[in-house]
Amino acid sequence: MLGERLDSLRAARPRVHCIANYVTANDCANLLLACGASPIMADDPQETAQITSACAGLAVSLGTPSARRLEGMALAAKKAAELGIPAVLDPVGVGGSDLRMEAARRMLGEAKFTAIRGNGAEIAALCSLTLNGAGIDDVSPCADGLETAQRLARRTGAVVILSGERDIVTDGRTAYRVSNGHEMMRLVTGAGCMLTALVSAYLAANPGQALDAALAAVCAMGVCGERAHARLKPGEGNASYRNHLIDAVYALTPQDLEREARYAVYG
Amino acid sequence: MLGERLDSLRAARPRVHCIANYVTANDCANLLLACGASPIMADDPQETAQITSACAGLAVSLGTPSARRLEGMALAAKKAAELGIPAVLDPVGVGGSDLRMEAARRMLGEAKFTAIRGNGAEIAALCSLTLNGAGIDDVSPCADGLETAQRLARRTGAVVILSGERDIVTDGRTAYRVSNGHEMMRLVTGAGCMLTALVSAYLAANPGQALDAALAAVCAMGVCGERAHARLKPGEGNASYRNHLIDAVYALTPQDLEREARYAVYG
Amino acid sequence: MLGERLDSLRAARPRVHCIANYVTANDCANLLLACGASPIMADDPQETAQITSACAGLAVSLGTPSARRLEGMALAAKKAAELGIPAVLDPVGVGGSDLRMEAARRMLGEAKFTAIRGNGAEIAALCSLTLNGAGIDDVSPCADGLETAQRLARRTGAVVILSGERDIVTDGRTAYRVSNGHEMMRLVTGAGCMLTALVSAYLAANPGQALDAALAAVCAMGVCGERAHARLKPGEGNASYRNHLIDAVYALTPQDLEREARYAVYG
Repeated sequence: MLGERLDSLRAARPRVHCIANYVTANDCANLLLACGASPIMADDPQETAQITSACAGLAVSLGTPSARRLEGMALAAKKAAELGIPAVLDPVGVGGSDLRMEAARRMLGEAKFTAIRGNGAEIAALCSLTLNGAGIDDVSPCADGLETAQRLARRTGAVVILSGERDIVTDGRTAYRVSNGHEMMRLVTGAGCMLTALVSAYLAANPGQALDAALAAVCAMGVCGERAHARLKPGEGNASYRNHLIDAVYALTPQDLEREARYAVYG
Repeated sequence: MLGERLDSLRAARPRVHCIANYVTANDCANLLLACGASPIMADDPQETAQITSACAGLAVSLGTPSARRLEGMALAAKKAAELGIPAVLDPVGVGGSDLRMEAARRMLGEAKFTAIRGNGAEIAALCSLTLNGAGIDDVSPCADGLETAQRLARRTGAVVILSGERDIVTDGRTAYRVSNGHEMMRLVTGAGCMLTALVSAYLAANPGQALDAALAAVCAMGVCGERAHARLKPGEGNASYRNHLIDAVYALTPQDLEREARYAVYG
Repeated sequence: MLGERLDSLRAARPRVHCIANYVTANDCANLLLACGASPIMADDPQETAQITSACAGLAVSLGTPSARRLEGMALAAKKAAELGIPAVLDPVGVGGSDLRMEAARRMLGEAKFTAIRGNGAEIAALCSLTLNGAGIDDVSPCADGLETAQRLARRTGAVVILSGERDIVTDGRTAYRVSNGHEMMRLVTGAGCMLTALVSAYLAANPGQALDAALAAVCAMGVCGERAHARLKPGEGNASYRNHLIDAVYALTPQDLEREARYAVYG
């Protein structure tokens, strides 16, 4: 099943509009090329809606925000929702500043995302937002990751991907636990952003199958994280690991993904 | 002949003002260092003209535009034209948004570029612009690449480099077809931007020889693309290829360039 | 002594707010991860003070400036000074434009930096500034690096790191000369920015020991530059060298640092 999602991606070569922060934009673009997609990077409100319109997918990241970039993202996300183009939100560091919290509130209020990907703290921070006038009760930031992810999924209609030691992928009803990955990924800046970009590519190439496509992307990234570690030579560190990681995404076959993915349904 | 252009570059170590987009700026800076130039990156209208004035060359890219960056580029390009400093325009994704089309129109109207480098779609989009009140008739975007490149060269006075499976380098009279390169280059983000930066370095070090310098740069990049592919080890992908590519530019000797360049005059 | 500074860094895993320019931000973030710190990148005035408040260290770079970024840096630096969080200033290209000179003047006037790191021209340019209404007489840009560094240190209260063939580290009283490093570092864009980031991490993890911590960071970077060169394989160039450099920071042990650091007190 997961292999077919990658087959579709390689066949479709979708154009993806990626509004990545400037720290990780280069890695996100190379990762999109590695998986078989074609990236377009643009963040200005004067052009983001037009560019999204010509793409099959959208990924937006709250990293290194500015009023200009956030406006560009909001216009892109609204256009994507209008045209039914799958969009992924990456709430980078959202709990860390009022600017990002307010941006997330606006983004979730004005557009509809197909998927949201963040770590436990970021997903919990989104859960604490009052959206469209309605709050959500009884969510503590310390709540169990699964419950937090499911609540956010039900509330937003998005597939929620919570990255951690074990990743959670849920649409609010079905929830998967993915146990692929390697701890070295935490030592590469933008590993989360790259996963977000990868999810957007899988979604773009697999319309109408958001949960499966997101699961395939999360497993693929985790498998590649393991393969990258297996290729580390003595003396190599996180810079080499980053290269091995993108190389692994380039080399991954549908058969590899089927064979090496490790996931289970929760419960 | 091409080897001498590289000799000059290594001897001059020209300072190049590179206004690259944030996706590829790091790669462009490292490529400029690799070829023997000294990069300065700056995009703000408050300083670009001043910085260009202290440089031997300028490269501007329409990627990830904003009003601020575009204004910074326009001021740099005007200053370069005023001082006779060679400038290269890279119309990244120009056909993809009105913002970029308008920016290109302004840039080509207000400044004079020594060279313009883009892919077929981008060069065709520039040809479709009405410049200084005068349109150009009978240019269809499907026109043959050679004719499009030559028209743009004659119209702007710039050497035009059209990147594709075969690269075209023309000043509107003489046209070269370069058959170096490797398809893997298309899987590295910013390969085009890096070529633009390389062209600016060759132009800066070879004043008065724009066509030859541009040809040398295009051949050099193509040769390095081939050499990078020859160094790829099993399991390596586009991230490693990017490193091999910049490394190859670093290692390239004038003798290598003379021996491995493959180009011919059209016609 | 130096090894203990690295021990502290690995134990503390300090969160560092890094306002790097977009050319080198990715490398700075990966270098911070490599040394054991946890980077947060953010440059907007709407959030920088808030983010700095939650960090143990701050690094600001004048590269690729804009009014927005400079305002963000100024607010972060003021907040750091207010809360006693160590902050490092990197005056990238400060002599090259009025915008950067004015930004440096404002930054040095409004905030207090724990350390300042630049090359000889940049440190001399800072010395030429009139700060708080008082100029400094008799400083010529050609003055001996040691004297320039010591004057700036005495004037600002910061530890000054002057990067060159031999690095100088001084608090205005004691001055060290560091002879680690490799000339290949000059061919990696952002090698200076990465050192600035590394200094901020060492400072963050070693409160109250600014001079020793800065010395340890400078020696560490130099040792890693040598080790990166030792790992270069035939045909590799500056792109591979960059990866080896970050990898070396990742792999460096306190024992390595003690054994391979080469420094002496001046005079």
